[in-house]
Amino acid sequence: MKINVVESVLKANDAVARENRRRMESAGVLALNLMSAPGSGKTALLEKTIPALAPQRSAVLVGDLQTTRDAERLSGLAAEVTQINTGRGCHLSATEVSDGLDSLRLEHIDFLFIENVGNMVCPAAHDLGEHRRVVLLSVAEGDDKVAKYPTLFRPADVVLLTKIDLAEVLGYSTRRVYDDLAQVNSRAPVIELSARSGEGLEAWLAWLREQRQAVGKTV
Amino acid sequence: MKINVVESVLKANDAVARENRRRMESAGVLALNLMSAPGSGKTALLEKTIPALAPQRSAVLVGDLQTTRDAERLSGLAAEVTQINTGRGCHLSATEVSDGLDSLRLEHIDFLFIENVGNMVCPAAHDLGEHRRVVLLSVAEGDDKVAKYPTLFRPADVVLLTKIDLAEVLGYSTRRVYDDLAQVNSRAPVIELSARSGEGLEAWLAWLREQRQAVGKTV
Repeated sequence: MKINVVESVLKANDAVARENRRRMESAGVLALNLMSAPGSGKTALLEKTIPALAPQRSAVLVGDLQTTRDAERLSGLAAEVTQINTGRGCHLSATEVSDGLDSLRLEHIDFLFIENVGNMVCPAAHDLGEHRRVVLLSVAEGDDKVAKYPTLFRPADVVLLTKIDLAEVLGYSTRRVYDDLAQVNSRAPVIELSARSGEGLEAWLAWLREQRQAVGKTV
Repeated sequence: MKINVVESVLKANDAVARENRRRMESAGVLALNLMSAPGSGKTALLEKTIPALAPQRSAVLVGDLQTTRDAERLSGLAAEVTQINTGRGCHLSATEVSDGLDSLRLEHIDFLFIENVGNMVCPAAHDLGEHRRVVLLSVAEGDDKVAKYPTLFRPADVVLLTKIDLAEVLGYSTRRVYDDLAQVNSRAPVIELSARSGEGLEAWLAWLREQRQAVGKTV
């Protein structure tokens, strides 16, 4: 009984997610679902990414339990920013994203960044209608997270190893991350980057542009 | 209907939590529920705390989706370590802790550290039967997390601002954390500490010893 409830909720979510994806494809929008622990640097990365993608236009859907702090940081950079407050919810749902899409003029947008709630467990189970899943892991979080959260890393289309400028002061070795990813997800490229120093940003931007072209062909 | 299901699950959890608390009080054990984002340094802190508390004896229940890495790090330091794998669950439940307690010889233990799943949302809603709630926030996660996750910080009995040795290289200001805590939870003391440099550890150990005495009086 309990499992049936969960399954029907997930099935309903998936149906809405498919409709979200169709809407964005009709408008030529590439949608990216950014997932990570709190404080891995999702907003800081978008602050650097969005101006660098210009003249291509970006919009952001920001998921948070409360507060509009991330949306405030991004307003002025992105063409449009919509905050989605989840209350006590530990992830965005496809229905919340659908409501968020209603607030955007999709035909004016090239990239839609969906900044999920900072959480390494719940977001991984919910398709939002994105085209690509971006998982961030900050070197400050330690090197053991890939093995601990395989449900997050397994479906990732790219893994961003953020705050790489801290690796030296932390004595951080990336080896365990690569070893664990070889077990869990050998498909996704890994980009080591720092929003602060700028290291790796060009590789990330190139990846984004490639994805938009690849998806654009199927629209 | 859906809300009723959730409420009855939470009520059942609370009943088991009360029984857990009663069992631990009978055995003279102080139980602490450690909650934070992934990678805030819960295990690193316990690696320093447990030997420093000797001759008082500590046990650990470690919650994780999978892997026994944290338990492996702590075995040999604590009197007893039990790993609880939650699968896809984003928090420990009182029932899982109850099963964990069955594996421990409670009469040999002074402190029980329950290391919750790394997550700033789900664990806050579930009483495990602990006596004190310890919330960790790493300076590497940024200074905006108290306002973003008030359900975690509001019921905290102590807030540990970890990795404080990184504050200088990060240009981190603690002011926003203190300002936000004044709104959300002005009751809990804040201890700035670093498991790496040792800063703040004495204050944390003193707090732990005080709590055990305070709770011991009511047993």
